[in-house]
Amino acid sequence: MADLEKHQRMANAIRFLAIDAVEKAKSGHPGLPMGAADIATVLFTEFLKFDPTAPNWCDRDRFVLSAGHGSMLLYSVLYLLGYEDFTLDELKSFRQIGARTAGHPEFGHGAGIETTTGPLGQGLGNAVGMAIAEKLQESRFGTDIVDHFTYVLAGDGCLMEGISQEALSLAGHLKLNKLIVIWDDNGISIDGRVDITDSTNQTARFAASGWSTISIDGHDPAAIASAIRQAQSSDRPTLIAAKTTIGFGSPKKAGTNGVHGSPLGAEEAAATREALNWPHEPFEVPSDILDAWRIAGLRSAQAHKDWQKRFAAKDADTRAEFERRNRGDLPAGFEAAVQEYKKQLAETKPKMATRKASEAVLTVLNEVIPETIGGSADLTGSNNTKTKQTASVTPDDFSGRYIHWGIREHGMAAAMNGMALHGGLIPYSGGFLIFSDYCRPSIRLAALMKQRVIHVMTHDSIGLGEDGPTHQPVEHYAALRAIPDLLFFRPADITETLECWQLALETKDAPSVLALTRQDLPALRTSYEEDNLCARGAYVLIDSDDEAAVTLFASGSEVELAVEAHGKLQEAGVAARVVSVPCFELFETQSEDYQAAVIGDSPVKIAVEAGIRMGWDRFIGNDGLFVGMHGFGASGPYKKLYEHFGITSDAVVAAAQAKLKA
Amino acid sequence: MADLEKHQRMANAIRFLAIDAVEKAKSGHPGLPMGAADIATVLFTEFLKFDPTAPNWCDRDRFVLSAGHGSMLLYSVLYLLGYEDFTLDELKSFRQIGARTAGHPEFGHGAGIETTTGPLGQGLGNAVGMAIAEKLQESRFGTDIVDHFTYVLAGDGCLMEGISQEALSLAGHLKLNKLIVIWDDNGISIDGRVDITDSTNQTARFAASGWSTISIDGHDPAAIASAIRQAQSSDRPTLIAAKTTIGFGSPKKAGTNGVHGSPLGAEEAAATREALNWPHEPFEVPSDILDAWRIAGLRSAQAHKDWQKRFAAKDADTRAEFERRNRGDLPAGFEAAVQEYKKQLAETKPKMATRKASEAVLTVLNEVIPETIGGSADLTGSNNTKTKQTASVTPDDFSGRYIHWGIREHGMAAAMNGMALHGGLIPYSGGFLIFSDYCRPSIRLAALMKQRVIHVMTHDSIGLGEDGPTHQPVEHYAALRAIPDLLFFRPADITETLECWQLALETKDAPSVLALTRQDLPALRTSYEEDNLCARGAYVLIDSDDEAAVTLFASGSEVELAVEAHGKLQEAGVAARVVSVPCFELFETQSEDYQAAVIGDSPVKIAVEAGIRMGWDRFIGNDGLFVGMHGFGASGPYKKLYEHFGITSDAVVAAAQAKLKA
Repeated sequence: MADLEKHQRMANAIRFLAIDAVEKAKSGHPGLPMGAADIATVLFTEFLKFDPTAPNWCDRDRFVLSAGHGSMLLYSVLYLLGYEDFTLDELKSFRQIGARTAGHPEFGHGAGIETTTGPLGQGLGNAVGMAIAEKLQESRFGTDIVDHFTYVLAGDGCLMEGISQEALSLAGHLKLNKLIVIWDDNGISIDGRVDITDSTNQTARFAASGWSTISIDGHDPAAIASAIRQAQSSDRPTLIAAKTTIGFGSPKKAGTNGVHGSPLGAEEAAATREALNWPHEPFEVPSDILDAWRIAGLRSAQAHKDWQKRFAAKDADTRAEFERRNRGDLPAGFEAAVQEYKKQLAETKPKMATRKASEAVLTVLNEVIPETIGGSADLTGSNNTKTKQTASVTPDDFSGRYIHWGIREHGMAAAMNGMALHGGLIPYSGGFLIFSDYCRPSIRLAALMKQRVIHVMTHDSIGLGEDGPTHQPVEHYAALRAIPDLLFFRPADITETLECWQLALETKDAPSVLALTRQDLPALRTSYEEDNLCARGAYVLIDSDDEAAVTLFASGSEVELAVEAHGKLQEAGVAARVVSVPCFELFETQSEDYQAAVIGDSPVKIAVEAGIRMGWDRFIGNDGLFVGMHGFGASGPYKKLYEHFGITSDAVVAAAQAKLKA
Repeated sequence: MADLEKHQRMANAIRFLAIDAVEKAKSGHPGLPMGAADIATVLFTEFLKFDPTAPNWCDRDRFVLSAGHGSMLLYSVLYLLGYEDFTLDELKSFRQIGARTAGHPEFGHGAGIETTTGPLGQGLGNAVGMAIAEKLQESRFGTDIVDHFTYVLAGDGCLMEGISQEALSLAGHLKLNKLIVIWDDNGISIDGRVDITDSTNQTARFAASGWSTISIDGHDPAAIASAIRQAQSSDRPTLIAAKTTIGFGSPKKAGTNGVHGSPLGAEEAAATREALNWPHEPFEVPSDILDAWRIAGLRSAQAHKDWQKRFAAKDADTRAEFERRNRGDLPAGFEAAVQEYKKQLAETKPKMATRKASEAVLTVLNEVIPETIGGSADLTGSNNTKTKQTASVTPDDFSGRYIHWGIREHGMAAAMNGMALHGGLIPYSGGFLIFSDYCRPSIRLAALMKQRVIHVMTHDSIGLGEDGPTHQPVEHYAALRAIPDLLFFRPADITETLECWQLALETKDAPSVLALTRQDLPALRTSYEEDNLCARGAYVLIDSDDEAAVTLFASGSEVELAVEAHGKLQEAGVAARVVSVPCFELFETQSEDYQAAVIGDSPVKIAVEAGIRMGWDRFIGNDGLFVGMHGFGASGPYKKLYEHFGITSDAVVAAAQAKLKA
């Protein structure tokens, strides 16, 4: 069998597994796997470094299918290579409940899926983060144990989404030379020809941000191999623009949008079998071809063994440290550092903005956790995310621990997902809370993928003042609390900030957002408690000896107001209690008894938060009172804004008194 | 006074008004106004077509300050030109509550502000929409009454945000030759030099998407004028890369990030006065310079008069139609068309997905409303937004009514805001509901600006099936309901779809999102009612003769389940009622009596929605039952998913029975 013929038959194995699985599911996208099968065959059988028997080997090359709708390409390849999570039965269960082979690749469904993709452009952003992580780890542990490429297969849609620009400009700037993006340039999107909607010269665009670019025929295996080889030796990230035919092989549908997102249909599937000379039953791969793939799957076994030897040669401390970081465990000194600092805070009771509190906390924690990687989307001085431990990463030096992400919130969040997925690092960001909207798709995916990425989001309310409604989060607490499996923290003072940081760092399987103030806040937790009270989500900050007529619930900066209101109510002879609510999600994980006890049964329940009411009925009921925002904010000095919008301790007291009298 | 000296003094008037206002407010961004004053002076005094005495003249040139933090540039210029909303007192009230001069330009605060900017990149996206609107209107009404430019002043941040790529690639593709973007290339962002974070060759990048590009010294008035002149005659959109010095004139801070976002301070302000030879008191503009500006303000008065003559020469029908569209009034035949179709539906009772219902409705409404402009972000066949009336817009022909936005949700939404702001058009989009996350920042701004943009968002739940959790909205209903002043509609059948479309179109001062199903739904509204029941936000769909033991609340596709459950409960002898809840926001605007009556006092209240619970406590209380989602979705056929997640009429009945027995 000539090489070319063998290549084509190996590629056809991908094509027909994809065709057959989509036919069986009566749903899916056959066009991309059919068009990109040649690329995948060359990449996986000649270049990609991986070991199907140890799919999580940390020095493997990463492959990201950014065009996630083409998931059958990935599942087919993983099956062919011998990844045990992807059996033929799994392929036959494509797009069925419980299968590993979901409509789009879902991280965690099976080893070999490096990230969840589907929302276009995200994979490209993830890959930039993986490539950053590789360079960071290489600079820490050496090229002998960290030396891998990150490959991306991206479609037209990935490149049209704005996130692609943030990702590629960052990658170009940082000279991520081990990032190789293959653009499946098939000229077709769902609405038809791409030139209906776009006329961008993509290679020129990538070149403008410092990428190497190579244009090839994406069905020519020699050209594909040559391009990848060239890309591997570039000193910059490389875009390989691979001209392909979507639905390659389908006599009637190839090169059209008819093959993008629908099954071929029995007739056209049969015609394609004919055209590509594939006289095999559905899901049948001839044994010589399956063997060829399985042999390719063993290609890096020796490289893996060699790597193990090199790793074994490292000193024990380095090995232990490398493994600890890759497991995602925190270092031994973490808990002690937290407690020591907490004791100190109970004594010094510093008054400061929680963004500054966060900086103070990070200064302690970054000292004991060397794997944190900080950053900010061009708001370093405002987010207070840079500490003395975190020198800036530059294109030529990745020994630092701080990334100037630029004004690229979305690219930042997507890259952080990639860093977390890569392993060995704990990324935390900096941005304004309002701009959680800019990176929301990536935050959602972090939650879906259960990744520990931590977003420090400051300027968390009208308390930011003069910048006005475009910069004042109002609906964002609710909108972030709405995302499943995301921890949204809004600490009330420095001790709560410390506790929330502790929780964010200790939670290995969920992302966190810390919403922090621009304005100063007093210390409200004035005595030392070893327990992390924020871990309960909500807790009684001030209890009442008498039966409380009023319970005040608040988060973040409004806990101060609740405490003030509590004092005024006490003075007026009204027994009241104050519940601090730093994290709705953790409260929901508490026992029903605890929840009931915290909520209590005061006849008057009031929530105070400088956002909208949505979500608070959980605590106060739909007959409870809410002191907060009822619409967008305004531009002005922050204290005046709080008065203007009626979010004051007097307003809380007045509301309580009115209800008590009613 | 030599021309250059005069120019410089006129530019200095901007600089010092900005410096003084920021000093007085002790807050703001002086750097951009100081750096871009020369550009603004040339643009506004030599090129921009506008009439301060008729600031809303529809054929004025549009100016968008995309770098909205430099708001004092705009306010200063508007004051200097004689816009009456921007008095010296307003400038002195910069960033104070109630002032027109908010921290960032807020649309509606005063004539002369064309759009709300601040979140970076949005202005660029808006401007693309304005330039599209100009071309659409020109093709409808002729160059003699529609012929204006759209100018943008954008900063580095605007160009780093991903939305910029979506905007510029769309503009290049559509050959928006009357769009001129001036990039204030000052090389500084908040964290420091831009080259800390970005190495993009911006002119090459724009050129890659088909733009003309010109590079100039942004402090050279002759070069600025020449570049604008050249841009005006280009057959493509133009980027003018204007090299400037941020904080121009400040001896110590010019060219540094120290002048980006903080007042100069009294000392440096004085030094800058000295350096620029501006021996005037704060807020004082010497009369010769103010006169020169005011005279420039009159520059287009004759052009405006000429335009009025040309407009008057049009026939009466054309004038009336043009004015109607610009007022944003719907045509006379609208209501009748709605009622006629509603009657028809009550007879035919079609079963169909609400996305197809929307297409059917649009086919009726697009016939009577010629100013709707449809589109989709590359999901035309899935969103069903294209009707027989809406031919595609192409780069060479803007007579169509449908825009293939490409895979650019964010750019689409921002451009739609610009189209609505421009006036004369009602833009509606198409996309998947999940991707509301991608365009959320622009949806929020539409709400803040009170603009009628309508987002058709299909595939609105796990009901989309096999695409899986990356494509299944779960938290999105809550997240969109959370945005103030946005109408989020989730109609339950075709009649509700019609009513929701009617409401979205009739609401001139708010954006709407229509969440529509992929899967078929039966007609639930089977008798004709002239009243728009959806206008009440929630209404009793099925009442109970007996006192209802159970009330079921549901929206969209789950109303069918509630109706089924109702039948089963009735069979079991349990009196129940069903409330359809197509729009939370409109429900909140109803009388308290109405609200109380709809919610009722059934001992068992159950909400059914294929999203998370957040928000529903408003109807069912925090002791109510919720049948819906508790986390992310999954990949599978949709009916199986509903069963898998326990969202079935049987589950509703079981929950009701259990509670009744408890």
